[in-house]
Amino acid sequence: MVGSGTDKTKLLLTGGPTIILVRPQLAVNIGMAARAMANFGLSDLRLVAPRGDLARDDARAAAAGALHVFEGAKLYATLREAVADLGFVWATTARERGQGKRVEAPATALAETAARIAQGEAHGILFGPERTGLDNDEIATADAIITFPVNPAYASLNLAQAVLLAGYEWFRAAHGDAPAFAMVERSPPAPRDMVLSFFDYLEGALESSGFFRPEGKQAVMRRNLRNIFHRVGLTEQDVRTLRGAVVRLVEGPRTAPQTRRRQRPKKETPPEIEADD
Amino acid sequence: MVGSGTDKTKLLLTGGPTIILVRPQLAVNIGMAARAMANFGLSDLRLVAPRGDLARDDARAAAAGALHVFEGAKLYATLREAVADLGFVWATTARERGQGKRVEAPATALAETAARIAQGEAHGILFGPERTGLDNDEIATADAIITFPVNPAYASLNLAQAVLLAGYEWFRAAHGDAPAFAMVERSPPAPRDMVLSFFDYLEGALESSGFFRPEGKQAVMRRNLRNIFHRVGLTEQDVRTLRGAVVRLVEGPRTAPQTRRRQRPKKETPPEIEADD
Repeated sequence: MVGSGTDKTKLLLTGGPTIILVRPQLAVNIGMAARAMANFGLSDLRLVAPRGDLARDDARAAAAGALHVFEGAKLYATLREAVADLGFVWATTARERGQGKRVEAPATALAETAARIAQGEAHGILFGPERTGLDNDEIATADAIITFPVNPAYASLNLAQAVLLAGYEWFRAAHGDAPAFAMVERSPPAPRDMVLSFFDYLEGALESSGFFRPEGKQAVMRRNLRNIFHRVGLTEQDVRTLRGAVVRLVEGPRTAPQTRRRQRPKKETPPEIEADD
Repeated sequence: MVGSGTDKTKLLLTGGPTIILVRPQLAVNIGMAARAMANFGLSDLRLVAPRGDLARDDARAAAAGALHVFEGAKLYATLREAVADLGFVWATTARERGQGKRVEAPATALAETAARIAQGEAHGILFGPERTGLDNDEIATADAIITFPVNPAYASLNLAQAVLLAGYEWFRAAHGDAPAFAMVERSPPAPRDMVLSFFDYLEGALESSGFFRPEGKQAVMRRNLRNIFHRVGLTEQDVRTLRGAVVRLVEGPRTAPQTRRRQRPKKETPPEIEADD
């Protein structure tokens, strides 16, 4: 079932590694974990002996519409049953647990999992109870360990936030993190002759205004000024806007009756720059 | 003030970009954002016209001991005041907002910010209200945009989770994500002659047991078997453990009175493998 937080007009990503919450204590964390999974296109949630009441309203509210994950969660009595069909299992833990297992950062681990899921493998990630984390027998069930990079003095990561970070790294590895939208150019980049013509006009006006003092510094002052504008990456519209601004500074306010465009006396002077909504 | 969730024996990371929550609606989200910041060593939290009641118990509880961030949050009436001392400002937004600003993924943005903070710049990140996000004037205050990679059909990221992801990428860029602990090797890697001697013993025992059939397949069967064990990356202790296991399979159970170590009859047979706690 697809919940109210889901936009049915867009592609609903599913798949990815199975998320297994082992003995979660608070139902609200299960809801938040479901939401975090949905954010990053994960869909297979498994719960091993959850203690919280999944029917609680606040758990459902915490899922915030990610009901395809929350209501689709599968319940297991034991961890062994929950991982039975998986080919590779990560355990998440904040402390060294002395089990001689490989330990990876989330970015490394999920990149590996994304590559192997693409080859048809079934991977899962274990998350332990809120207070205690996974016990040693539970960690022994896993092939390798993921540990989250955190502030050493403040390392307690909320259960749903740990799921979020795993989901985020899954998404980056499987789908990339290129922004879904790019800078909108309202106008094409200004051709160089348009930019140079603006510089000529600006520098002529500044010259007349006595800006370039002392004389010996004029070349470097022109260069510095040009470089300020080059850093903008000017569009055609940007150049028209700036030129219009300088014209007004030089000429002062227009007086409506004495407009230069006498051939169209009824019409207001057109704006020198396009309206910016 | 350092809160109860903070381990005073460890280095408390601080610094990083300023986190600015603009018109946050729910105090509990401010608490969760403070916790997320503490997790990743961020410490400068600013609130512009927050609507929630910061004195609420649940807001404090959500901060989960990250009181050095939560209680240290600074209040501002306007966004302009909140960003006054910053040299570069990112706005976070989920949608294209038509402002012609550069748009980056969080990993790219925070890598840039980490490099520039290291050079002494002051950077900040704006997060909008829960329901609506930043408005156009607020986005116009920023130099560039961060957008989070998410499932297109389920893009609603909780405010504190967005702060968490920014914090996580700050931490990765500024401090790295190398695991704080590595696989514990209880025993050094087994020297190759120890491994080969085990293979010789194992293969001799399997030969006697009639495992290598048909005859023509013997070479490939030996190779496959050796490769299984090579994949383990065997330690000295691993080889002793496996050798002991094969010995028992070959010789069957020991009968305590007839131990081979007759020179020490009073003592129990020493275990062939070290105890595993």
